[in-house]
Amino acid sequence: MPAKHPVVIDLKFERREIDAALADAFAGRQVLRASDPRIDLSQARYAVIWKPDPNLFQRAPKLEVLFSGGAGVDYILTMPGLPDVPIVRFVDESLTTRMSEWVVLQALSHLRQVPAYLGQQRERQWRELSQPEAKDLTVGVMGLGVLGLDSVRKLKVMGFDVIGWSRSKKTIEGVETFDGGELDAFLARTDILVGLLPLTPETGGIFNASLFTKLRQGGALGKPVFINAGRGGSQVESDLVAALDSGILGGASLDVFEKEPLGADSPLWTTDNVIITPHAASASDVRALFRNAETQMERYEAGDPLQHVVDRRAGY
Amino acid sequence: MPAKHPVVIDLKFERREIDAALADAFAGRQVLRASDPRIDLSQARYAVIWKPDPNLFQRAPKLEVLFSGGAGVDYILTMPGLPDVPIVRFVDESLTTRMSEWVVLQALSHLRQVPAYLGQQRERQWRELSQPEAKDLTVGVMGLGVLGLDSVRKLKVMGFDVIGWSRSKKTIEGVETFDGGELDAFLARTDILVGLLPLTPETGGIFNASLFTKLRQGGALGKPVFINAGRGGSQVESDLVAALDSGILGGASLDVFEKEPLGADSPLWTTDNVIITPHAASASDVRALFRNAETQMERYEAGDPLQHVVDRRAGY
Repeated sequence: MPAKHPVVIDLKFERREIDAALADAFAGRQVLRASDPRIDLSQARYAVIWKPDPNLFQRAPKLEVLFSGGAGVDYILTMPGLPDVPIVRFVDESLTTRMSEWVVLQALSHLRQVPAYLGQQRERQWRELSQPEAKDLTVGVMGLGVLGLDSVRKLKVMGFDVIGWSRSKKTIEGVETFDGGELDAFLARTDILVGLLPLTPETGGIFNASLFTKLRQGGALGKPVFINAGRGGSQVESDLVAALDSGILGGASLDVFEKEPLGADSPLWTTDNVIITPHAASASDVRALFRNAETQMERYEAGDPLQHVVDRRAGY
Repeated sequence: MPAKHPVVIDLKFERREIDAALADAFAGRQVLRASDPRIDLSQARYAVIWKPDPNLFQRAPKLEVLFSGGAGVDYILTMPGLPDVPIVRFVDESLTTRMSEWVVLQALSHLRQVPAYLGQQRERQWRELSQPEAKDLTVGVMGLGVLGLDSVRKLKVMGFDVIGWSRSKKTIEGVETFDGGELDAFLARTDILVGLLPLTPETGGIFNASLFTKLRQGGALGKPVFINAGRGGSQVESDLVAALDSGILGGASLDVFEKEPLGADSPLWTTDNVIITPHAASASDVRALFRNAETQMERYEAGDPLQHVVDRRAGY
């Protein structure tokens, strides 16, 4: 039976949540909490991290595998002193399901004019609004990783016409897809744009004034809608506010922001037809994170290949 | 070219709606309104009906095809003097899809605490709420006709645990179902109750104080939620308000009401966690009904087999 090596935990999550999850995790394996500076990490081979301390890699120079605490890994790839070892992404059915819940909820909310109906409800007003049906709208999903693919599938089941975009072309049965060079053609077809992109040098600020003007105008909702549950760094919020104000965009649903928490002075809080959630579309379940990390550690110790390893050149 | 035979209309819908739809329907075909007792129906071969007068079959003894104005046909099959002719059901994909859009939207809105998050947004408050995921909640759908079945399927795709109830037991792959006598067992399992029932003597007032107390308390949302898109006559609104006030129910989404439009003095407009839409979940489109009936009449007159014919022995 292979040895069970110790694991370093450096997760900037809620302490209570980590404690609760650790109670049932990593049986037979020593757990080293990086938050205690006295603990010796020098022999550790694994680290489960989310926004770790900058000195982690000095304290733990023998790491062989890094486990990311979130779906995104942009925060790791830019760390100074990052060792050249595999980074395992956190892929979890619950993470995926909850993201799709949020994406479908937001797409349906704009389709069925939820903000307008709730406004009427506050006024005790009984008035039916003209409403297109799902098949009259094209939802364009940018980012076709595990999260994007699940959202595409569920949006299709709900009746939306769905198209997809990713840097390198993906083939999805029954869904028209576009690659990096075909962005304009993709945007020209899109009534509801769903951002599920990782943050990389290429996607930083990609949702800007120029992109918003390329979305389809005059579709069944009149104006295009922007939904972002990827990373706040992908959106230029001043451009977004301007596009909503000038009517280039008809609405938005935002779970991520350039700076979080979103400042109380942001006009987005009160812009008509904008729905804000506090980076809560898909919370990481720490128990699932530890379960997945442990599965991969066992594979590694048994000599099996690791799964969900990040491609560093692609940035995700 | 085959003759275009006259058609009897006996629909207990809103008069205005029927008039508007008839303006564009049945071109070149005589329309006989049964509501006028002086009109001679004795030679008519077709009748489009929803809860027709009991003497219809005496007035129109030469009917060759009946077209039902709704998906359900219970009301026809129990009529005395029903002639032994084909009954064509009203099936419309768009009607079904739009109802499922609304049902899934409402279920997700309660799952993801939309009213609470929108309240926080108005206060510019950044705070993540604890949120169960779809699989932690059991959605119980009452009414398993075409609309109920489509909602069941889509709620399942979104990850909810789904169970179903109908008067006579239905078998749905992968879904536990209950029949008329098993209502209490069904309710005891249900966190989100979805009403998609037709209004019949048995379903009038079925959503009352006694029923609400039988729903599961202490599920993942804490308290049960009531969603109704069937008929307003099935709900006792004074009981509903009391159940929401006393905390027996945690929330509701209502598209139908005892009296429509909902009176401006109804407390439902402003009760916490109650979402109101003005009987707009899936507009009962009389135009689509007439279009579908006409298509079948043309098939019949051209000698082609009728579609969507009710199997009388099966009862649907």
